[in-house]
Amino acid sequence: MMELVIVGSVAIDRIHSPTGEVAEVMGGSALYSALAASKFTSPGIVGVVGRDRGDQIISFLEDNSVDTRGIEIKDGKTFFWEGRYFQDINNRETLDLDLGVFGDFNPDVIEDYRKSKVLFLANISPSLQLGLLGQIEADYVVLDTMDHWIDSERQLLLDVLSRIDLLIINDSEALLLSGKNNVVKAANYILSVLKGDLIIKRGEHGAIFFSKEYMSFAPAYPLEEPIDPTGAGDSFAGGLLGYLVSKDLDMACIPEGMLYASAIASFCVESFGPDGIAGASINDIKARVEFLKKITCGHLEQ
Amino acid sequence: MMELVIVGSVAIDRIHSPTGEVAEVMGGSALYSALAASKFTSPGIVGVVGRDRGDQIISFLEDNSVDTRGIEIKDGKTFFWEGRYFQDINNRETLDLDLGVFGDFNPDVIEDYRKSKVLFLANISPSLQLGLLGQIEADYVVLDTMDHWIDSERQLLLDVLSRIDLLIINDSEALLLSGKNNVVKAANYILSVLKGDLIIKRGEHGAIFFSKEYMSFAPAYPLEEPIDPTGAGDSFAGGLLGYLVSKDLDMACIPEGMLYASAIASFCVESFGPDGIAGASINDIKARVEFLKKITCGHLEQ
Repeated sequence: MMELVIVGSVAIDRIHSPTGEVAEVMGGSALYSALAASKFTSPGIVGVVGRDRGDQIISFLEDNSVDTRGIEIKDGKTFFWEGRYFQDINNRETLDLDLGVFGDFNPDVIEDYRKSKVLFLANISPSLQLGLLGQIEADYVVLDTMDHWIDSERQLLLDVLSRIDLLIINDSEALLLSGKNNVVKAANYILSVLKGDLIIKRGEHGAIFFSKEYMSFAPAYPLEEPIDPTGAGDSFAGGLLGYLVSKDLDMACIPEGMLYASAIASFCVESFGPDGIAGASINDIKARVEFLKKITCGHLEQ
Repeated sequence: MMELVIVGSVAIDRIHSPTGEVAEVMGGSALYSALAASKFTSPGIVGVVGRDRGDQIISFLEDNSVDTRGIEIKDGKTFFWEGRYFQDINNRETLDLDLGVFGDFNPDVIEDYRKSKVLFLANISPSLQLGLLGQIEADYVVLDTMDHWIDSERQLLLDVLSRIDLLIINDSEALLLSGKNNVVKAANYILSVLKGDLIIKRGEHGAIFFSKEYMSFAPAYPLEEPIDPTGAGDSFAGGLLGYLVSKDLDMACIPEGMLYASAIASFCVESFGPDGIAGASINDIKARVEFLKKITCGHLEQ
C-alpha cells in the first residue's frame, strides 16, 4: 500500500519574472507537490512525460526520493508552459502552452498505486479526477482544481467535490466556485457542498483551513526576495500531505502541517524552478516552522 | 499625567458601501482610535469640531469614556467626508470633502495634556505632528501618516520618523514610503530610517509588527459580512495603544495587543460608523482574541 499517490502534470517551464528569467526548468503540479511531500515520505506520481525530457525529469525525481514508477514516458514532447510574472508577482500571464503528451493524459494506474493512504488529485479535469477515484482506493482524498474547470465543468466538479475529503484551492478560485465576494462567506458556501474540509490559499497572505467545526490559519513565510511563485501552491499541498502521512493522518496535526506547508512553499518561491525546494533540508524547513510559530504565537523576548 | 493623548480628526462621514449607505455618522481618525482605546483607558483627544455637530459628538465621546477636554468647538462646519467603497471593499473613492474647521487645525494643547505616557499622532500633516511633538512630552510616541504626506512632505515626514517610537501605516503606504515592491523589503528599509518600530496593516490580511530584532503577526478577525471599513485602521491603532497603556507599556505585550487591536477593528468593520465598536464589550473583544489565538496557535480538538 502506498502512503501518498499524486496525480497531475509534469512539465517544462519557461519563466519570466521581474527578477530574471529561465529558459527551461522542470515544473508541473505533480512534480512540485511530490518534491514537497518527499521531505516526509516517498510519494508516487501518476503522470506522463515526453521522450525529449523524460529521462532527465525521472532521474531528478528519483534523486529526490520520489517514486516514479507511475510516470509514463511517451513519444512526443513533455508539457511545456511559458509564463511571465508582473511587477506584482501575484499576477501572471501565459505566453505559450504546448500540452504535448499531456494532451491525452488518461492514466491506467499501475497495480502498486491502486491502494494508498492519501490520494492527491492535482489540477486536472474533473472527468479525469472521477476516473482516478474509480482506480485508486484511498483513505483520504485531496483535490485541487482551477478556474477553467469551475467555469466549464462545474456540475462534474461538484460531483467530485461531494466525494473527497479535502479541497485545496486559492482565494480567487474559492470566490469563483462559490459566487461570493468574501473569502469567509465563500468558505461557508463551499463547506455546504463539500463532503470534507477546505483550505483556501492566499499566496503571500497565508492559508486558511476550514472545516464545519474548526478554522486554522497559517501565515506565509515572509520573504524579502520572492523570485518565482510557480509551484508554490502545489508545494504547499504536497508539503501538508507529506507531513500528515508522516503523522498517520492525525487530523489534529493540520495546524502544524499548515506551517510546514507554508515553510516548504517559501523555499519554492525563493528560486526559479524546483531547486529551492529540492535543496531545502528538513532542518531548514523546521527552522522556518519555528519562526512562523514565533511570529504568530510567540511573545517578544526582552 | 495622561495615559494616552490622541491628536487627529473628528468628522462627520457619509458612506456608500456595496451593503448599504448612511447619510451621516460620526468619524475621523481621532474619534475611532479614541473609542477603541477607551476599552482600556480614558484617552484624551486633541481635535476640533464645528458648532453644527460639536455638542452631539462630544456627548457621544463622553458617554464612551473619552476625555474630550482637548476638543475645541469652533464656529463653522465639522470636517465632512463622503466616500464610496467598491465591490472589493478594500478600495474606495472620495466623493466629497469639506475640511470645515479642521482646515486650519493648529492646536494649542491644554496644560493637562502636555504630559502623557503615550502620544498618538494620527494622520495629520508632518509639520503639525512636529509642532505637537514640541508641545506634548510623552514616553512613547506613535505616528500614522498617509500617501499625501509621503508624496508632498517627504523630508519633513522623515524628520518626524527619526523621533518617534512606533509607526503604524498600511501596506500601500509602506511601499510608497520605501519605494520597494515587497512588504518585507519595505519594512526593512523603513526600520533603517526610523528611530523605533513599525506596524504594517494589511486590512483583511492582518497586520505585522517589525522591530530590528522581532516580528509578530496578527491575522484579521475573519468576517463574513464586512459592512464599512472606515476607521478600522484607526481602531486597530487605538486598540493596541489602549491595551499597551493598560499593561504599563510592557513591549512584551505587543503580540497580545495586536490580537486585541485586530478584534476591536473587526467590530468597527461590522457596522457603519462607530456603533459597532462603541457597542463591543471587553468580553466580546476577549472572545474574538481567544478565537484568533485558537486559529493561529491552537490545535484542532478532536
